[in-house]
Amino acid sequence: MTETTTSQVTVLGLGPMGTALAAAFLAAGHRTTIWNRTPGRTAALAERGATPADTAAAAVAASPLVVACVRDYAALRTVLTGTGADWTGRTLANLGSGRPDEARALAAWAGAQRLGYLDGAILTPTPTIGTAAGTVLYSGPEESFAVHRPTLAALGGRPAYLDADPGRAAAYEMALLDLFATAVHGVAHSFALARAERIAPTDLAPYARGIGGLLPEMIDRAARQLQAGEFPGEVSTIGSAAATIRHVAETARAHELDTGALDAVRALVDRAVAAGHGGAGLGRLALSVPR
Amino acid sequence: MTETTTSQVTVLGLGPMGTALAAAFLAAGHRTTIWNRTPGRTAALAERGATPADTAAAAVAASPLVVACVRDYAALRTVLTGTGADWTGRTLANLGSGRPDEARALAAWAGAQRLGYLDGAILTPTPTIGTAAGTVLYSGPEESFAVHRPTLAALGGRPAYLDADPGRAAAYEMALLDLFATAVHGVAHSFALARAERIAPTDLAPYARGIGGLLPEMIDRAARQLQAGEFPGEVSTIGSAAATIRHVAETARAHELDTGALDAVRALVDRAVAAGHGGAGLGRLALSVPR
Repeated sequence: MTETTTSQVTVLGLGPMGTALAAAFLAAGHRTTIWNRTPGRTAALAERGATPADTAAAAVAASPLVVACVRDYAALRTVLTGTGADWTGRTLANLGSGRPDEARALAAWAGAQRLGYLDGAILTPTPTIGTAAGTVLYSGPEESFAVHRPTLAALGGRPAYLDADPGRAAAYEMALLDLFATAVHGVAHSFALARAERIAPTDLAPYARGIGGLLPEMIDRAARQLQAGEFPGEVSTIGSAAATIRHVAETARAHELDTGALDAVRALVDRAVAAGHGGAGLGRLALSVPR
Repeated sequence: MTETTTSQVTVLGLGPMGTALAAAFLAAGHRTTIWNRTPGRTAALAERGATPADTAAAAVAASPLVVACVRDYAALRTVLTGTGADWTGRTLANLGSGRPDEARALAAWAGAQRLGYLDGAILTPTPTIGTAAGTVLYSGPEESFAVHRPTLAALGGRPAYLDADPGRAAAYEMALLDLFATAVHGVAHSFALARAERIAPTDLAPYARGIGGLLPEMIDRAARQLQAGEFPGEVSTIGSAAATIRHVAETARAHELDTGALDAVRALVDRAVAAGHGGAGLGRLALSVPR
């Protein structure tokens, strides 16, 4: 029974990520029904064996597992409430991006429809979906995850189950996108500053890669320090960061580049130094984020 | 002659990085003279064979190559002008952090003293100094670099020569510290948001590492796009980033966390979208940094 139910899946939403999800299900041999709000996105997937549904209701009716990847929770709610489908016994796995409270609210709505609800967070870009590098986190009822895990495994890597709280995957996603988005700004601003200094992007890139490569170890060290509540400054101290950030912000300002992010970095570091943490390791900064 | 001159080196400034530099010169067998403005930092290095100098003038007199690693250019200038030393024929390699214009100004001062000047940028933390991972960039007269390269090689990796412009190493350093400092803020804010969501630091860390691990490839892609002036959005688009950043900022605000950096990220992304680059790859953001 489980094997039969897990071999049929519907994908709602065929943007670049939804398309990658459907392609991965197809590649794993699952019978895959697809639907998109605006038409014209189903042809390539249909050629690979997907079944386009004419309506969202028909798409939902086709499979015990409905995977959604639409713009946001509000858009998904509109699609779902518009279907008029009988959800009983089905499971919705929402892999779109959103806030933890939105995930919890949608889980409550789903419960009222007798619809199982898993919330998922996709942590890696579209090309990784269906490969070992694909990383998706799930939260919600553990038994729903257990039933659909064999199907969801088609999306790549190892599907990771977090917690029964349906908001948990979104909470991880928000914290991780916080890091990603800020780092992306750092990359963009670094190239902008290099450009102002007439450094070619491909000349900077090998060294920028090296800086990026310092992060994983720094993240582990910060996590250990935060977990232990002790912040030895043996590798880098907040105080030494303060001096260099000042130079960077001054250089950016001299080139008349926006320094909004750098000013926020500087405010955080200065705040930690003023509170007496100049000799502490960088992990201590997490406790100095202004509230 | 070259072999003799390059085997003697002086290190001015014995903070954590200066101490690591001196230790690396000693480990490579160079006769190393050390000096620090405030006393009491020389004992451990002296035990390993370093020669402490009583004055900065004596330290400078001891070696043809003087490596400086003090707080900033202003502090270094104070030390240098206070020595009263005869600089003729010596080379100063300043590995401290600062702006490109400060490096150029110090190079001009050095020229007036008939002192050779190399400006260096240390890109990796103290534990890497003297190992293959140690990365130091140099700019200034190429012949000065060539003469002292065998000694400087003791600091680790391959000493990289950039350009005759003495400000070039500092320009690279500023662009790279821009990336590093902003990413460090991202890490701190990510842990702060996780903490507000009651996610343990060591539970977040493996996934945060994964996010950090996406950066090198993203940096290379952005550099290629910027070099080519074409920004295909096949992996991630600026438009899709805009939606997720909004969710992150809202989540941070709901937890009453400061959103200064996220607001700057959002402003950059929204600016690029408003200019019609929503479908472009993330590399395009470097051209949308407000001026």
